[in-house]
Amino acid sequence: MPEMNANLATTISALTGAKKYKTLRDILVTIDPADIALLFNDLPMEMLPLLFRLLPKEQAADTFVEMDSDPQELLIRSFSDTELKAVIDELYVDDAVDIVEEMPANVVKRILQQADPETRKLINELLKYPDDSAGSIMTTEFVDLRPEMTAAEAILRIQRTGIDKETINTCYVTDESRRMIGIVSIRALILARAESPVTEFMQTNLISVNTLEDQETVAEKIRKYGLIAMPVVDGEERLVGIVTVDDAMDILQEEAAEDIAKMAAVTPTEEPYFKTSVFALWKSRVPWLLFLMLSATFTGMIIRSFESALSSLPVLIAYIPMLMDTGGNAGSQASVTIIRGMALGEIEFGDTIRVIWKEIRVAVVCGITLAVCNFGKLMLLDRVAPLEAAVVCTTLIAAVFFAKLVGCSLPLFARKIGFDPAVMASPLLTTIVDAISLLTYFKIATVVLKMG
Amino acid sequence: MPEMNANLATTISALTGAKKYKTLRDILVTIDPADIALLFNDLPMEMLPLLFRLLPKEQAADTFVEMDSDPQELLIRSFSDTELKAVIDELYVDDAVDIVEEMPANVVKRILQQADPETRKLINELLKYPDDSAGSIMTTEFVDLRPEMTAAEAILRIQRTGIDKETINTCYVTDESRRMIGIVSIRALILARAESPVTEFMQTNLISVNTLEDQETVAEKIRKYGLIAMPVVDGEERLVGIVTVDDAMDILQEEAAEDIAKMAAVTPTEEPYFKTSVFALWKSRVPWLLFLMLSATFTGMIIRSFESALSSLPVLIAYIPMLMDTGGNAGSQASVTIIRGMALGEIEFGDTIRVIWKEIRVAVVCGITLAVCNFGKLMLLDRVAPLEAAVVCTTLIAAVFFAKLVGCSLPLFARKIGFDPAVMASPLLTTIVDAISLLTYFKIATVVLKMG
Repeated sequence: MPEMNANLATTISALTGAKKYKTLRDILVTIDPADIALLFNDLPMEMLPLLFRLLPKEQAADTFVEMDSDPQELLIRSFSDTELKAVIDELYVDDAVDIVEEMPANVVKRILQQADPETRKLINELLKYPDDSAGSIMTTEFVDLRPEMTAAEAILRIQRTGIDKETINTCYVTDESRRMIGIVSIRALILARAESPVTEFMQTNLISVNTLEDQETVAEKIRKYGLIAMPVVDGEERLVGIVTVDDAMDILQEEAAEDIAKMAAVTPTEEPYFKTSVFALWKSRVPWLLFLMLSATFTGMIIRSFESALSSLPVLIAYIPMLMDTGGNAGSQASVTIIRGMALGEIEFGDTIRVIWKEIRVAVVCGITLAVCNFGKLMLLDRVAPLEAAVVCTTLIAAVFFAKLVGCSLPLFARKIGFDPAVMASPLLTTIVDAISLLTYFKIATVVLKMG
Repeated sequence: MPEMNANLATTISALTGAKKYKTLRDILVTIDPADIALLFNDLPMEMLPLLFRLLPKEQAADTFVEMDSDPQELLIRSFSDTELKAVIDELYVDDAVDIVEEMPANVVKRILQQADPETRKLINELLKYPDDSAGSIMTTEFVDLRPEMTAAEAILRIQRTGIDKETINTCYVTDESRRMIGIVSIRALILARAESPVTEFMQTNLISVNTLEDQETVAEKIRKYGLIAMPVVDGEERLVGIVTVDDAMDILQEEAAEDIAKMAAVTPTEEPYFKTSVFALWKSRVPWLLFLMLSATFTGMIIRSFESALSSLPVLIAYIPMLMDTGGNAGSQASVTIIRGMALGEIEFGDTIRVIWKEIRVAVVCGITLAVCNFGKLMLLDRVAPLEAAVVCTTLIAAVFFAKLVGCSLPLFARKIGFDPAVMASPLLTTIVDAISLLTYFKIATVVLKMG
């Protein structure tokens, strides 16, 4: 709610100016860390160190995690070593890694110096995993139980170590070589008799992912199985971390935003709209516009090669935009449907034939529907000659047919040869479909109307 | 993984044919309910009742919830009253409501007859909330605590009632008029001393939503605040239910899929691609194609009104597709960025001026970049006259400018007058931008080249 924030920001600014620190603190402690982070975006940067110091330790750390990287960097630079150490001590390792990844080298060095040796080791280990892999987003702070423990002993262990764990809602039973042999939900633990061994009520249908699995796949699996946390195992099947559901939601949201941006021929940016500079927006948009503009050279060449024919029958020119738009729309309907189906794991390369057969049938019924309606319109409203109307409508069917065919197969082949279907589909699709539609139009016109 | 399922489906079919029920059961109990539901999609419908009866009670209910509505209906029809009652007893109320909403009237009647009176009352109450509201997706099965309880008493209460609750990871402290006064995480409860009152460690920064709040807003808030469950309150601020994070993830995924479909001019369908009939695909796509095709009448009219002028300078025709495509792409870049920003709550109607000012600057730099590149290409490759190249490039700048302007403001105004920005933006955008680009092109050409 940007408006609510704007008003609150004014109040906070005024109170800061008037040095009403007690009142400020009373207000801030009632606000959720996610909202404080948003609020900080609306305040002058130089106020942040002071306001941040007013927050209680835990709220301060939670707020810090939610902030954008620019104000984070500013705060770290304003921190004394002791203050920096206090914040790092409160962070979960996966959050610390996310922050470190966004900071310049000298800030990273300071963070690692202030972290205690064990945390430093963990951060360095997590930094080694490839970007966007399960390993790079997991936390190593989970509750592990041993099979010989009873329910009461497991609860004791949580009471002793749980305060530092990212979640205690799911605990993991591992054997002496750290292989996961069971999962215990906190519900099962609380409902169990105190003396039952955890092996009696642990769940043994285990779902896990490898450290190298892509983060989108991990998030999608957490959603599919309705998990609170997904265990992450290394190449030797040892349990090394967990990815929690709150991170999975952020990932799904980001990936959806990225797919939407790519389909609209925009290079995805991570910053919010108003935080993105005009130059950054230009950079994310202009390459695609340039590429698409230059690829329209083909359509231009086709039109020019039929120039003399067209000038003898100018009525046909009027329908070029309609044919190209309809082809483009029919194609993007198919490609977006298939791209989405691939993202959800419903469609893969092996299904190509089934997809094409389905799209062909859809294309035929769509094409005929459009052609019939358009023929009526051409005869009754535009009052063109029947033969000319027939040329336009036959082209319409052909354009929809080719558009759906190219639209549904392009994403499948793009994935097969290792390209991102969302990036490749839309620009290439327009170019190919436009060219095919125009060529078909002029060829049919030349034959039927003896234009040549 | 459709392929894994296909292989497993073959095995299951063979074992069913050979009546190896013991083996089948041993296989099925190792599979997660979400995967069994997917597997059932690949098996002949008539095998489902038999396989379903092989599942242990709890796994059966979990599988039932994950299934599509067609096989669900088939199963219900094959159930005896006792079997139906057993499944309903295992379901959480919110899942039961989801199922009831998809069933025909006679099946609904049977379900309600078999549900115990209290469940029946809850289902009926939840059915009264508007579609896609927080009330319609919440569950009423949460753990409520009283402020006078100690940690030990709270844990006792969870042990007594927790088995029937959807989640015990977050518990809610309510006063005697059922107003929520605090939230207690299971972690806080386990880490607290047994004799501490819950008021001592409950969290009092309360975040909740109203029963009538849109489900997308609820899911987005769960994501933003990183919650396991969101409390839902009625008009009198009484706690009536919770929405859990697993449902929130499904909602975010569905809403993203819907937005993507709408942007590609497809009416969203809920069924997976291969389950959707050709007729259903036709129905979801053809209205938009028809609408867009007929709206291209305007561009046709514009071209026809400049017909004589165009035939005297046919070289200009060749650049119509390029100008229209570039305008369309530039416009959809802006509209998709704004629509996404609105969905994430970053942009609202009050920001219209800021958005327009930003897009104008982006449009100017993008337009000039494209014009410069294109001028070079027109002179060096296409070898058109400098004056003609100037007409094309000036139009290019104007087209990008108007496209970004219309593209960024249309979604904002659509939302303001109560339309869905994603639905309205793309079809209208193409029509408006195409018409403006063409008019600008011909007007400039008429003036500069004295075509008229």
